Amino acid sequence: MERITPRTLSGFMELLPAKQAKMEKMMQVLRDTYSLYGFSALDTPVIEDAKILLAKGGGETEKQIYRFQKGDSDLALRFDLTVPLAKYVALHYNELAFPFRRYQIGKVYRGERAQRGRFREFYQADIDIIGDGKLDIMNEAEIPAIIYRVFRGFGLTRFQIRVNNRKILSGFYGMLGLSEKSGDIMRTVDKLDKIGAEKVSAILVDDCGLTDQQAGEILKFIAIRGTNAEVLSALEGYAGRNEIFDLGLAELQAVTKNLSAFGVPEENFAVDLTIARGLDYYTGTVYETTLLDHPEIGSVCSGGRYDNLAEFYTDRPLPGVGISIGLTRLFYVLDEQGLLNDKLPSAPCDALVLPMTEDVSKAVALAETLRSAGVRVQLYSEQKKFKQKMSYGDKIGVPYTILLGEDEIAEGKCSVKNMATGEQVKCTPEEAANHILQGLSDANGPLILEK
Amino acid sequence: MERITPRTLSGFMELLPAKQAKMEKMMQVLRDTYSLYGFSALDTPVIEDAKILLAKGGGETEKQIYRFQKGDSDLALRFDLTVPLAKYVALHYNELAFPFRRYQIGKVYRGERAQRGRFREFYQADIDIIGDGKLDIMNEAEIPAIIYRVFRGFGLTRFQIRVNNRKILSGFYGMLGLSEKSGDIMRTVDKLDKIGAEKVSAILVDDCGLTDQQAGEILKFIAIRGTNAEVLSALEGYAGRNEIFDLGLAELQAVTKNLSAFGVPEENFAVDLTIARGLDYYTGTVYETTLLDHPEIGSVCSGGRYDNLAEFYTDRPLPGVGISIGLTRLFYVLDEQGLLNDKLPSAPCDALVLPMTEDVSKAVALAETLRSAGVRVQLYSEQKKFKQKMSYGDKIGVPYTILLGEDEIAEGKCSVKNMATGEQVKCTPEEAANHILQGLSDANGPLILEK
Repeated sequence: MERITPRTLSGFMELLPAKQAKMEKMMQVLRDTYSLYGFSALDTPVIEDAKILLAKGGGETEKQIYRFQKGDSDLALRFDLTVPLAKYVALHYNELAFPFRRYQIGKVYRGERAQRGRFREFYQADIDIIGDGKLDIMNEAEIPAIIYRVFRGFGLTRFQIRVNNRKILSGFYGMLGLSEKSGDIMRTVDKLDKIGAEKVSAILVDDCGLTDQQAGEILKFIAIRGTNAEVLSALEGYAGRNEIFDLGLAELQAVTKNLSAFGVPEENFAVDLTIARGLDYYTGTVYETTLLDHPEIGSVCSGGRYDNLAEFYTDRPLPGVGISIGLTRLFYVLDEQGLLNDKLPSAPCDALVLPMTEDVSKAVALAETLRSAGVRVQLYSEQKKFKQKMSYGDKIGVPYTILLGEDEIAEGKCSVKNMATGEQVKCTPEEAANHILQGLSDANGPLILEK
Repeated sequence: MERITPRTLSGFMELLPAKQAKMEKMMQVLRDTYSLYGFSALDTPVIEDAKILLAKGGGETEKQIYRFQKGDSDLALRFDLTVPLAKYVALHYNELAFPFRRYQIGKVYRGERAQRGRFREFYQADIDIIGDGKLDIMNEAEIPAIIYRVFRGFGLTRFQIRVNNRKILSGFYGMLGLSEKSGDIMRTVDKLDKIGAEKVSAILVDDCGLTDQQAGEILKFIAIRGTNAEVLSALEGYAGRNEIFDLGLAELQAVTKNLSAFGVPEENFAVDLTIARGLDYYTGTVYETTLLDHPEIGSVCSGGRYDNLAEFYTDRPLPGVGISIGLTRLFYVLDEQGLLNDKLPSAPCDALVLPMTEDVSKAVALAETLRSAGVRVQLYSEQKKFKQKMSYGDKIGVPYTILLGEDEIAEGKCSVKNMATGEQVKCTPEEAANHILQGLSDANGPLILEK
C-alpha cells in the first residue's frame, strides 16, 4: 500500500495530551466563570451563508475568510463569534429574553499568512450581554468582575484590567472642535503603546491634519495618570464643556464605583485614557487586559460597549457589551514563555491500577470503586513485565499507581504508590480513594505561573 | 442601510438557550465519564489537508465531503474523528505512550442531502484505545462499562449494550466454506433489523451466491437467543471446528466474564449474534447500543475492535477499539420524542438578584457572595417596573429570585423566592446560598426521561 505522510496544516494548533489537559482546564475555568455570571452557553455553526457572514463586508476580513461553494451554496467559515451572535439574535429575537447574556467558546477561522504564533484556526472565548433597545450601565460595570475571576481562575494575580470610555474621548475631541476626526484620532492614539508619543503626534498632525496645539492637548490628556480616584478627579476638571464627555464621565464613574463591591482589587484595575480600541463600533466603556510582567503579549482580553449589534440584519437597536479572549493565542504565548504550570498533574488519569494476578476481576472491581468515588482510573491490562508497566505510568505522568496482588486481595486491600515521592501505603479501596483525592487536592496549584 | 435576512443553513443545528443548556449537560456527562476511565482529551483541527483526509478514498465519503481550495492548498473539513485520530497517532507516534486512550467531542461535516433530522454539521463523541502492535482483550471488555456509565449519566436505565465478535462470525462462515464471502454476508446480515429474515435470506442466495442450506444455517445461527449464559453455551456447541471461531468465542467470554465486576447489570447487556457492523475494518468485538423503548432510533452508540488504525499513514500495526456517539442526532431524536427532561432547570442562572434600591452596591456584593458559594447569579439592573423584572425571571425560567430592598439591607438579609412554589424566605446571604444550592440539588433529576 502506498502511504501518505501524515501532517497537520500549518497555522492549526494540535496539542499533545499533557498540553491539551491544560487547555481543557483553561476552558473549564472559562465555562464555570461565565456560568457563574448567568451567561447561557451558545453554539452556532462553524459554516454560515457567506452573504450573511460578510454583510458588513470590506477589507481584511474578506481576504482572510475561508469561503467556498458546495452545490449552489456560497459558504464561509466564521471568522469571529460576534457576527454569528448578531445573526442569532436577529433571527431568534422573538424567542429570547433581553438582556440576553451568552457565552461562546468556539473555533474561528482566518486564512492569515502563516507565521510563528499566528493561527488560522483558533478559539475565541466570548461573552456578550445584549439589550433590547436599552442596556443599563451596570452591565458594563460587571465586566471587569468577570475578567477578574477568569484570570484569577487561571491562577494569575499580576494582571490589570484597563478601562476607558469612548464617550470621554469623543467628548474631549469635541471640545477641541475635532468631532469629525475622532475616529481617525482614536485609531492613531490606540497605537501609542506600539509607536510612542512622538510618532502619534506626527501622525495626528501630518495625516489627520491637526494643529500642533491640538495634538499637544490630546497627548497631554491621554498622559493623565494616577490612581483611579486621581484620574477621575483630573477628568472632572474637563466637565461641563461637552455633553458627550459628561455622559462618558458619569458612565466611567458608575463602572469604577462598584469595583470593590464586585470584589475587584484596586491593583487589578486602572482607568487608562490611552485605551481606545480601534474598532468604530464601540461607543462606551472599552476594556483591555494586560499581564503586568508580560506587556509584550499585549491585551489578552478586550472588548467594549456597542450600540448596534445586528444593524446588518435588523433595524431593531440592539446595544450590548462584550469581551473576547483569544484563547489559542493566549495559550500559545503562555506556553512559549514557560508560564504553564508543569507541576500541575496533566496525566489522563489520577491512578493507574496494575493487576498482579491472572484473574483481573478484583482489579476491575477496585477500579470501578475508585471511579465511583471520583478518581480517574486507568486499568492497565497489557501483558507486560512489571518494569514496563511502571515505565508506562512514568511516561503518562500518573500521580499514583495501585498494585493489586494475591496478598492485597487476601487482605481486602491495595497498595497505593505516590509516584512523585515513592511513598507507598496499603489500604482499603475506600481509603485509597480518599488518600488519592486528598493528595491531588494538596498538589493542586495555579494553571499559570507568575515569575 | 440594506438589510440581509438572517438565516442559519439547513442541516446545521442551532439551539435556543434552554435546549443548549441540556446539550451542555450531556457533553459534561461525556467529558466526565470518559475522563473517569483515563481518556485524554484531544482536539484536532476541523480543517485538514484533503489528500490526508481522503487517503482511504472512495465512495460516499468523497461525495459528501466539504472540500475547497485556499491559496494553493487542497483542504477539507473532517467527516469523522477517526481519520484525524489515525493521522494524529501516526504523526505523534514517538511522543505518545501506548496504549493511548483519547476522547474527542467535536463537530464533523458531511454534505448530505438536506432532510429532516439529518445534519451536515454534527457532534461525534468518540473514545478510542490504541495499542502499539498489541492490545489486550480487557480493553474491549471495558468498553461496555463506559457506555453503561454514559447512558446512566444521561439518566437512562432502559438501554441495552449489544455485543458480538466478528471473529465468531468469520469463523462460522469459515465452517460453512464461505470465508471469502464473509464481508458480503456480514453486510447483508447487518440489515436484519431493517429488512427482516426473509429478505436477508433472499439476498444471501440471489446476490451472494449461497445455497439455500448455507443461508438457512446462517439464519439459524444468528437466531440464537437467550441470556448471555445461554447464548455462550449455544456457541460452545460450535467450538473446535474453526480456529478463528474459537478465538472469537474466547474473546467474547473474556468480555462478558467481568461485566459484573465492571458494574454493568445483566439487563443492560446482551450477546447478540446479529450485530455485525457493516464496516470491513472491525476485526473483533463489535458494539451497538439501543434504547429499549425506542428501537426505531437504532443504535445510539456503536463501535468495535480494529487491527489497523493508521494503515494509510504508517506501516506500524496500531490495533485499537473505539466507540462513537452521534451526539447531535441523538439530541435531536430525544428532543423530537419529548424525552428531554423539561423539569430540569435550564435557565442561564440559578438566581436572579433584583436590587430594589437606587444604590446597587449591596446587591452587587450579595451577588458576588452567592457566586463565591457556587450559585450562578444574574444581577438584573435594567430600569424596569417590578412586574417586568419578575416577568424576565419567568421568561428565562430562573428557579429563584432574590429581592434586596431597604428593609433587607437594614437587617443584613435578603428575600429569596422559589419561583416554582412561590415560597419566600428572608435570610442572610450565606443562608440564601445554602437554601438555593439545597433546593437545586433536590430538584435535580435525569437529563433524559423514560416513558
